[in-house]
Amino acid sequence: MGQVRVDLNISLDGYMTTTDQTPEDPFGKDWSRLVAAYVATKTFRERVLGLSGKGTTGLDNTYATAYFEGIGAEIMGAGMFGLHAHPGDSDWQGWWGPNPPFGYPVFVLTHEQRPTLTMEGGTTFHFVQTPPKETLAVAQKAAGDLDVRIGGGASVVRSYLAAGLVDRLHVGTAPILLGRGERLWEDLREFEQGYKVTSKVAASGTIHVTFQR
Amino acid sequence: MGQVRVDLNISLDGYMTTTDQTPEDPFGKDWSRLVAAYVATKTFRERVLGLSGKGTTGLDNTYATAYFEGIGAEIMGAGMFGLHAHPGDSDWQGWWGPNPPFGYPVFVLTHEQRPTLTMEGGTTFHFVQTPPKETLAVAQKAAGDLDVRIGGGASVVRSYLAAGLVDRLHVGTAPILLGRGERLWEDLREFEQGYKVTSKVAASGTIHVTFQR
Repeated sequence: MGQVRVDLNISLDGYMTTTDQTPEDPFGKDWSRLVAAYVATKTFRERVLGLSGKGTTGLDNTYATAYFEGIGAEIMGAGMFGLHAHPGDSDWQGWWGPNPPFGYPVFVLTHEQRPTLTMEGGTTFHFVQTPPKETLAVAQKAAGDLDVRIGGGASVVRSYLAAGLVDRLHVGTAPILLGRGERLWEDLREFEQGYKVTSKVAASGTIHVTFQR
Repeated sequence: MGQVRVDLNISLDGYMTTTDQTPEDPFGKDWSRLVAAYVATKTFRERVLGLSGKGTTGLDNTYATAYFEGIGAEIMGAGMFGLHAHPGDSDWQGWWGPNPPFGYPVFVLTHEQRPTLTMEGGTTFHFVQTPPKETLAVAQKAAGDLDVRIGGGASVVRSYLAAGLVDRLHVGTAPILLGRGERLWEDLREFEQGYKVTSKVAASGTIHVTFQR
């Protein structure tokens, strides 16, 4: 069985969500600042944007590449899939278009019962009403020998971390202070116990902290 | 004129104070974990404990040495001097014994009017009722060409940071999660603007982040 992984970008003050989204700027300026180093990598540009030949190739890119490797299934909350923004909209297929950058089964935790969506490129969205631990067992079965990612959002990630279900947590910490949003580090006292913690600093100033069981 | 400096140890989740002090363990286990890497340095052992010949000599020690260099005056809150724990006790002379490890004027922000204390080794404690900015001007005059340290506690440090009065902030971040206490990173949105931020990781796992104007 593979590992259970979480991979996030947070600010130096620990915020993993941003609050300045508007209809005109749906990601917001803060999000752009938070993920700037990740978005600048060669891997992100190739894998997500489909742009080749440019992008950073240093430590940020090493982590970006690892992000995409070895994942066989993913679990995410309803908000991350967009169900809070599009309640009851049976045509909604997520933010990622017809060919989402997953390529594996994605389990969306939601109270809404929806039929499974089969997308291009090997991504299937399953909408499940099961508790975190049960959902993980199903996702692990779907992933086979590969890893399962807990994708987000904040409360879903924290619930898996607090339940001791995560084997590897990588946080790319941007050297900026957001001052508002949802904090990753909330009610996780002594989470480091049982993990080896390593930190590395990229040329961008991003501090990559990894907790590995 | 010198710089205004802040030098702190915080946890990965941003706490600069700990909460598990007891009469039997007045520092508490969390504090020991928070400052373990700093206390292990050759410089701390020599300068504060009076022990020679041992201690770490790597990056943690480089920052510990810098901590003691070039300071000509310090500002601290009443709580850090111990006035909250010893209210109205005119015999109280702080936590540091007859020869405190300062060696320069220390300005204690308090509503309590107390006579100046002249200690061994060049430390004088002045008890002032002036606002942060005025107190800084007096401390800077006392420091001459040397730097002024804002020593703590949490609310005093944050008030100087928020007022834009600090030229250099160094935080030694221990790779532990405390989950409770007072956070350094509170209401400091975009504090990084106008600073160059650099981060380095010591062998102890401590992440040293420096904001330099």
